Amino acid sequence: MNQPYYEPKDLEDFPNITEYAQPKGNAFFSYYNKATSAGKLTEREKSLIALAVATVRHCPYCIDAYTNKCLSLGLDNDEMMEAVHVAAAMAAGDTLAHATQMRKIIKKKEM
Amino acid sequence: MNQPYYEPKDLEDFPNITEYAQPKGNAFFSYYNKATSAGKLTEREKSLIALAVATVRHCPYCIDAYTNKCLSLGLDNDEMMEAVHVAAAMAAGDTLAHATQMRKIIKKKEM
Amino acid sequence: MNQPYYEPKDLEDFPNITEYAQPKGNAFFSYYNKATSAGKLTEREKSLIALAVATVRHCPYCIDAYTNKCLSLGLDNDEMMEAVHVAAAMAAGDTLAHATQMRKIIKKKEM
Amino acid sequence: MNQPYYEPKDLEDFPNITEYAQPKGNAFFSYYNKATSAGKLTEREKSLIALAVATVRHCPYCIDAYTNKCLSLGLDNDEMMEAVHVAAAMAAGDTLAHATQMRKIIKKKEM
Amino acid sequence: MNQPYYEPKDLEDFPNITEYAQPKGNAFFSYYNKATSAGKLTEREKSLIALAVATVRHCPYCIDAYTNKCLSLGLDNDEMMEAVHVAAAMAAGDTLAHATQMRKIIKKKEM
Amino acid sequence: MNQPYYEPKDLEDFPNITEYAQPKGNAFFSYYNKATSAGKLTEREKSLIALAVATVRHCPYCIDAYTNKCLSLGLDNDEMMEAVHVAAAMAAGDTLAHATQMRKIIKKKEM
Repeated sequence: MNQPYYEPKDLEDFPNITEYAQPKGNAFFSYYNKATSAGKLTEREKSLIALAVATVRHCPYCIDAYTNKCLSLGLDNDEMMEAVHVAAAMAAGDTLAHATQMRKIIKKKEM
Repeated sequence: MNQPYYEPKDLEDFPNITEYAQPKGNAFFSYYNKATSAGKLTEREKSLIALAVATVRHCPYCIDAYTNKCLSLGLDNDEMMEAVHVAAAMAAGDTLAHATQMRKIIKKKEM
Repeated sequence: MNQPYYEPKDLEDFPNITEYAQPKGNAFFSYYNKATSAGKLTEREKSLIALAVATVRHCPYCIDAYTNKCLSLGLDNDEMMEAVHVAAAMAAGDTLAHATQMRKIIKKKEM
Repeated sequence: MNQPYYEPKDLEDFPNITEYAQPKGNAFFSYYNKATSAGKLTEREKSLIALAVATVRHCPYCIDAYTNKCLSLGLDNDEMMEAVHVAAAMAAGDTLAHATQMRKIIKKKEM
Repeated sequence: MNQPYYEPKDLEDFPNITEYAQPKGNAFFSYYNKATSAGKLTEREKSLIALAVATVRHCPYCIDAYTNKCLSLGLDNDEMMEAVHVAAAMAAGDTLAHATQMRKIIKKKEM
Repeated sequence: MNQPYYEPKDLEDFPNITEYAQPKGNAFFSYYNKATSAGKLTEREKSLIALAVATVRHCPYCIDAYTNKCLSLGLDNDEMMEAVHVAAAMAAGDTLAHATQMRKIIKKKEM
């Protein structure tokens, strides 16, 4: 009974979260579907964004879902990995951007 | 002297973070520039990904930088906002995807 | 030997983290117990808050602990799922609230 | 023109995010309103959850909105601060819960 | 009255958070002080860790507090910036480590 | 085929992420290696920082890698656990530091 917490079958259960608190679940999926399906941006563009966000937020379920979605849209391995590198570079970059606040304090002390 | 912590002029200071620990700073910018400039994905695609990641990670400096970058690439307001909605829907979705773990426990107890 | 990283038995080990750096571990549990047990807010209210925070922060151990805690307090499935929806809606909402910074820049350029 | 990034007037602009990508914005608010208004949980319970999530996710806009919401519902300062302490104790706790993974590795090596 | 949300004077108010929900606040500071003061690790080591965590979690108050703490301990600018680079490289690295989950799916499909 | 998402063998695959989008992968590892190897700070100091960041960001791969790295450098269990407590106390502390924004609003209303 030492079943791991994170399993692919949880992802299969995702559509069923509407079982409890149904009106909220339905409203979520209505938003989610509108937000992630083609609009002014293409499905390809949105799937790359979703893959990047899934990875930077460490969500295995979403990485699974959007890896498969990207593959089904014909995106190749380099393109998908480039999207992940944007997310990774941003995560490092936003950390370093906050180092400018450290620098402001250092500079003020040095004056 | 009650200067706010988050100011646009911090962003102007961002290229100067190489002043301290220079070899690391240079290596970061080398990675960051490769990761965010056009490759297999276009600059447009990468800037939309970066804007989405900036917003979901609450980095004002990066929101500023990539709003301006997207505008300079001719992206329109609806396209930019759609990228942000993908990020927002993913943040809600990854939270709800983790609710499947709660459901597994409930289902096991109900058996 | 390809044991998964996230396992329910890790949660059973949680009380044992005081084995190393004991004074810090004891001080943590003293804080944690005060913060999460009934006070001005009821145990029910605190357990719902804890479940919501556990989910939005993607902590399987805490989702497990507080799903069981909520069930033991007699909370029903809809109530627990509603708490998770608050967390999910906040995660989307705080992302979109940061889009107002993007809008400020767009509006300034449009003037 | 060194306007700070985070300003209360951004929060006043929040309802206007529907100006761009309107169908997505409307779907978001429909979800958000359902998720955060009274249902099986009371408005009081949901506002405390929202305040806790706002604080643990460092969103000044949401801290502002839900501090005011809680006050308008008659919640007192101790109750609000207790909600924040649950969030803070969970953030420390989920970090320490992950230390059980470190312990598993140490224990395996010690055998 | 458009006072920015993030101000250095908030940090001065930090010790006063015990005013509400006092027993929880006292227990927090008891834990916090034990965790961050010299023990098996030196104050220098702990302050560098705290500065790195403050930056990767985007907390201006903590960046302020630990920049000043590090300076008061005689740490130099390069040392402090190196600590921040560890945090930044880890944030990029943990994102890319999750890309191995994407790779597992791609490899399975390619078989 | 219900393979868990998080497995130690993913970590073994981490060096292979350069297979796709190779120039970006190489640039990342160049940065990562410079940032995490000895410089003005020692390997010991950087490994403790990395372990703390790994834990607060909930990255099992990084917890594995840096637990092993710390052990190989001769760090003992108490020292490693103290680093994790700094991260945990900071995560609680940055949440509570944001409660000062709640306090500002309360104080303004009380006047």
